[in-house]
Amino acid sequence: MWPDDRLLRLLNIEVPLIQAPMAGAQDAELVIGVCEGGALGSLPCAMLSADKAREQAAIIRQRTDRPFNLNFFCHKGVPADPAREAAWRRRLAPYYKEFGLDPDAPFSAANRTPFDAAMCEVVEAVKPKVASFHFGLPEASLLKRVKDAGCVVISSATTVTEARWLEDHGADVIIAQGTEAGGHRGMFLTEDISGQPGTFALVPQVVDAVKVPVVAAGGIADGRGIAAAMMLGAAGAQIGTAYLFSPEARISKPHRQRLEAASDDGTRITNLMTGRPARGLVNRVMADLGPVGEAPAFPHAATALAPLRAAAEKAGSGDFSPIWSGQAAALGRPAPAADLTRRLAADALKKLGGARG
Amino acid sequence: MWPDDRLLRLLNIEVPLIQAPMAGAQDAELVIGVCEGGALGSLPCAMLSADKAREQAAIIRQRTDRPFNLNFFCHKGVPADPAREAAWRRRLAPYYKEFGLDPDAPFSAANRTPFDAAMCEVVEAVKPKVASFHFGLPEASLLKRVKDAGCVVISSATTVTEARWLEDHGADVIIAQGTEAGGHRGMFLTEDISGQPGTFALVPQVVDAVKVPVVAAGGIADGRGIAAAMMLGAAGAQIGTAYLFSPEARISKPHRQRLEAASDDGTRITNLMTGRPARGLVNRVMADLGPVGEAPAFPHAATALAPLRAAAEKAGSGDFSPIWSGQAAALGRPAPAADLTRRLAADALKKLGGARG
Repeated sequence: MWPDDRLLRLLNIEVPLIQAPMAGAQDAELVIGVCEGGALGSLPCAMLSADKAREQAAIIRQRTDRPFNLNFFCHKGVPADPAREAAWRRRLAPYYKEFGLDPDAPFSAANRTPFDAAMCEVVEAVKPKVASFHFGLPEASLLKRVKDAGCVVISSATTVTEARWLEDHGADVIIAQGTEAGGHRGMFLTEDISGQPGTFALVPQVVDAVKVPVVAAGGIADGRGIAAAMMLGAAGAQIGTAYLFSPEARISKPHRQRLEAASDDGTRITNLMTGRPARGLVNRVMADLGPVGEAPAFPHAATALAPLRAAAEKAGSGDFSPIWSGQAAALGRPAPAADLTRRLAADALKKLGGARG
Repeated sequence: MWPDDRLLRLLNIEVPLIQAPMAGAQDAELVIGVCEGGALGSLPCAMLSADKAREQAAIIRQRTDRPFNLNFFCHKGVPADPAREAAWRRRLAPYYKEFGLDPDAPFSAANRTPFDAAMCEVVEAVKPKVASFHFGLPEASLLKRVKDAGCVVISSATTVTEARWLEDHGADVIIAQGTEAGGHRGMFLTEDISGQPGTFALVPQVVDAVKVPVVAAGGIADGRGIAAAMMLGAAGAQIGTAYLFSPEARISKPHRQRLEAASDDGTRITNLMTGRPARGLVNRVMADLGPVGEAPAFPHAATALAPLRAAAEKAGSGDFSPIWSGQAAALGRPAPAADLTRRLAADALKKLGGARG
């Protein structure tokens, strides 16, 4: 039925499609819907405590017997740099004044922690079919424990060099993440966003460079995109933004409204929201300061933005929120995640089956 | 045989593929090879005089009876700005010194002129099957004359807004040019390169927005890419960089060497070479100054670079040359243009025919 069944066999799924883990925008509900639709649902754990991750995984297990993915960030954590923090707060000071917020009030530090021993224990206890990582792979000893727990290991490459590195370091599947993708870029061997390839160019070059199955990500939001990804040699596709249109997505009202009005050219890659490059629809702070500039290192840029974000969202605005979105958001349509998954599969199969003309 | 035959019927070609016109990198030879291979060959006229364009068209007519395309730039010409020229020469002064060149020697002005009445007369005399434009469309009276000459009119869009504008203003076919594409970006309603969509995201959104056939461009360099473009709803593909590997391409030795060693992440969009954003492999001046910065308006940035380029190329270096390339150059393989065209078609048909699995 599908022209490539490597992912179906490896992950025990029916549709060669991975729902992109979207930290801060979803929980177990979306995972369950996607799994029930026949694809691989993904639970982002980067902003969860180990206990919370365990709890969410238990909810998934209770409501579906399908395989799922636990996703983690594995950046090198760095402590906040007081000088950069202070400079960042000075740049944001006019907004604090506008909202009547106290710039000297104590902050809650941004909470994206790298994959560590505590999270590894969660993986060992839950034994998900898949553990996926962003920003490279965990250190060798932790990765061995993940593999010993029986997990298929997936990570994202934004260049051929990163794809080769991931294969050499034990990834079983590689996501080729083109520049169109929403949210954080998985880049870990380069910091230069101007050299990042688009999905159309990246996927076949990664396919040629590695032996493991490659999944295409970035700019894919409908059945046409899945079919096209497979023509490029990908074993399947990863879709994020289109799932934010599902009622299961946990996004703010402004985020949902902006997605519904999205155009092809409304996003930018920005480092202002968290300190790492990520693609989102332009919000006020990105427009005012320019999307790329001096901001504290990941994830500390988010710390001083948090009070502004909370105040603005309370007033119904996403001016200071990350409105993560890929460049194909305009193709998204509201539908429950299971239905969306089945429609994506049916549309892709129709394109692929009709390819003979 | 092909899942979509709109281009075949409209352009009277056998392969739904357009060879991208590449000003400064090719002449009639490449056009003839592509046409004989069954696709649409394109002669770039932006750097030719009207007489030279007429002469090249005559060579094509003499050697093939297949349809071909004459391509023109239709930017708004602006006179050189003495202050910006002077600032640009100051930035380049250290290089002039290094090469022992006189910075005060008179310059030959860069020679990319917009489509005008003289070129329109060439079109009326030659009556090519296709006239294509970059940077929008000519003014209405000239465009009418092109249409009255029986030409199919094609232009490039880099956003959905530009695609709608082109359809409204008379384009018969629209090229959706994603960020992966090499050479000049066709952008004409925006100057913000950070918002430009990748091919994967752009093509289906343009397909949904216009009624005319859409051709995918950017990051396509093999049969997989053509097949993928058609899955996205494109009626065909435009390929540029891959044809630079043909012996018919008229590129410098350094350009050919750089292409043969190209990687997925080695290009940048730069405005330094001509004043307009264009994608090329990083050369010394792009590396030294940063790829995007202050430079004279199109095409005047090229004027002061010309003596440096000539001197460096004489020494076998492309340090000051535009090494135009898309992001999929690494997929290119040397082959005569007709053979390459036939192979691209065969590979695409194999992918498309095998899509049922």
